[in-house]
Amino acid sequence: MSNTLELAKDLIGRASVTPEDAGCQALMQQRLQAIGFTAEDLPFGEVKNFWARRGNSAPLVVFAGHTDVVPTGPLEDWTSDPFQPEIRDGMLYGRGAADMKGSLAAMITACETFTEAHPDHQGSIGFLITSDEEGPSINGTVKVVQHLVENGVQIDMCLVGEPSSTRQLGDMVKNGRRGSLNGKLTVHGKQGHVAYPHLAVNPIHLAAPALAELAAIEWDQGNDHFPPTSFQVSNIHSGTGAENVVPGELQAMFNLRYSTELTEQQIRERVCEVLDSHGLNYNIDWRLSGEPFLTPEGELLDAAQRAIREVAAIETELSTSGGTSDGRFIAPTGAQVLELGPVNATIHQVNECVAVESLDRLSDIYTVMLRNLLT
Amino acid sequence: MSNTLELAKDLIGRASVTPEDAGCQALMQQRLQAIGFTAEDLPFGEVKNFWARRGNSAPLVVFAGHTDVVPTGPLEDWTSDPFQPEIRDGMLYGRGAADMKGSLAAMITACETFTEAHPDHQGSIGFLITSDEEGPSINGTVKVVQHLVENGVQIDMCLVGEPSSTRQLGDMVKNGRRGSLNGKLTVHGKQGHVAYPHLAVNPIHLAAPALAELAAIEWDQGNDHFPPTSFQVSNIHSGTGAENVVPGELQAMFNLRYSTELTEQQIRERVCEVLDSHGLNYNIDWRLSGEPFLTPEGELLDAAQRAIREVAAIETELSTSGGTSDGRFIAPTGAQVLELGPVNATIHQVNECVAVESLDRLSDIYTVMLRNLLT
Repeated sequence: MSNTLELAKDLIGRASVTPEDAGCQALMQQRLQAIGFTAEDLPFGEVKNFWARRGNSAPLVVFAGHTDVVPTGPLEDWTSDPFQPEIRDGMLYGRGAADMKGSLAAMITACETFTEAHPDHQGSIGFLITSDEEGPSINGTVKVVQHLVENGVQIDMCLVGEPSSTRQLGDMVKNGRRGSLNGKLTVHGKQGHVAYPHLAVNPIHLAAPALAELAAIEWDQGNDHFPPTSFQVSNIHSGTGAENVVPGELQAMFNLRYSTELTEQQIRERVCEVLDSHGLNYNIDWRLSGEPFLTPEGELLDAAQRAIREVAAIETELSTSGGTSDGRFIAPTGAQVLELGPVNATIHQVNECVAVESLDRLSDIYTVMLRNLLT
Repeated sequence: MSNTLELAKDLIGRASVTPEDAGCQALMQQRLQAIGFTAEDLPFGEVKNFWARRGNSAPLVVFAGHTDVVPTGPLEDWTSDPFQPEIRDGMLYGRGAADMKGSLAAMITACETFTEAHPDHQGSIGFLITSDEEGPSINGTVKVVQHLVENGVQIDMCLVGEPSSTRQLGDMVKNGRRGSLNGKLTVHGKQGHVAYPHLAVNPIHLAAPALAELAAIEWDQGNDHFPPTSFQVSNIHSGTGAENVVPGELQAMFNLRYSTELTEQQIRERVCEVLDSHGLNYNIDWRLSGEPFLTPEGELLDAAQRAIREVAAIETELSTSGGTSDGRFIAPTGAQVLELGPVNATIHQVNECVAVESLDRLSDIYTVMLRNLLT
């Protein structure tokens, strides 16, 4: 069994459902300290985080990721125990196999290989690891980054090990992510009897055409790097339960995934414009989940493209589609940010798995990137 | 204290929150039997009903009503105990004072006055009383009517004592009611991640424009007797609670109050047409609460107009607005149906009340109507 596979299995076997860490970070720190990293725990609230570093000079290349995993879902739907990793038909099964304990193992073994070959490499290597990426993301990476900035640590390049690939390892990397803006909308009406609608104000009747208009808006057409901005209503609730009562209030939740073509401010103004034009009496509770970020070019992207070409013999595709990642907390520091990890087809599902041969291959890609960047 | 006031207080003091009767019907039957009525209990399920009759020939003039009342709401909001009737400033306070124990008392004392003056009156007088008008209305009037029809009893005219008046006793009668059709709509989508909307089908986005269109339809313009048909969405629910999940389903409840310009069938077709035109994948659970009914003219209406003119010195207004009543179960038998009762301003609210002088006046109106119809 390879070092990477062995370490991946060890990490998977530690049931770290967010925000638990179950000893994963301690294990990682041990391995890193053995090859010359200093490591410090940086807990916030109930979340475990650590920062580790080898070297003192620039450029600082950071591996970022999370040890926490999403819940398993119904255990009876899993073929094997989600926390007892098993290999079947060349696939390693277990919760976190793809998201993202395989990557964590590959990062460690890549550093072991690289520092053995290049003990006096240029620059520095860092590890920024949290147990709260799948959770509310309040006490994880965002707080560690804050701490690093306060301590004058400048990250130059950050490789996030999230599973970016679609069909085969390395076929896609994320060089940016869309922003995510949430709104909790309350529309005020006036409760009354269904038979006396002129004495009531039906918030459902008011909201429906307004939400229909918002859902139909073409917010932008995206650009070279981003898909078009997308608006989705995720929840809507109104009504007393009685079939003869017009309710007094409606609540809805919506989310926008937006590109660098728009700002949060512009979106908020447009939404309010539409609601105002429909004469609604409303409140919105806004919550910015993350700004969009983009690394359109640079050494980190070059290094990744070359490493994937060399190890996997394919040309990788750049993408900013899909959800978001902790990269959004790191990009504002000025760092180049790239996400590169295994195939994401089974993440968050039952019987999550990763191709066994991906693990060493990913470790090799990471190793070649370190070589490209720090020698 | 007048007989009507005394009887109204007695009835109010019996806490008959639907479907309870709390002895109201027994008291009514006692009074009716003492003046020559035969009475039979007709319970169905947990609901108490009775049918009473004086006389064997046509025309059969029936008083209809209910002994049950709606719940009190917060007791601390009542100035006096809802079941300990109290007179303040010429108003009788108590749950059911206006809806409709004042009317029940007036019906009884009107019959007592009338039968004393006309012991050998023409035709027959009937009483059709239930304890389930405020509730689901499944085991009340509808079942009694069924029983009567099965036993060959033909009701010619029916006076329902529901509180029809708006500002002063007798200013409005209801000579019909709109139909009430309910629908429970389920719109099917496909659950997915908010960041991958092309892999999901958002039922909220599909339903919003369809509901907006339904809410904006001018179903008809009403006619001489009916206000325009009205469509109201009373409840809408969709969403998993998570802000990043597109839900797979949406539920909504809607109700139409419709006039004789439309049939249930036409409404169902129009609703489905609209939903189909928006490409929705949906189900509707339909439930007809009642068909519209109308008594545009006839002896009963004449008798009411003349009696109100004589006793209250006003011209009454005909109306079919507002909710519905048990009249909807009686009208299909071919009976003329009219609703005439006290001012309804406080019904279903706290501190429900009725003007004390309304009670005798209503009894007089009912007495004059009996005189107009049965002598």
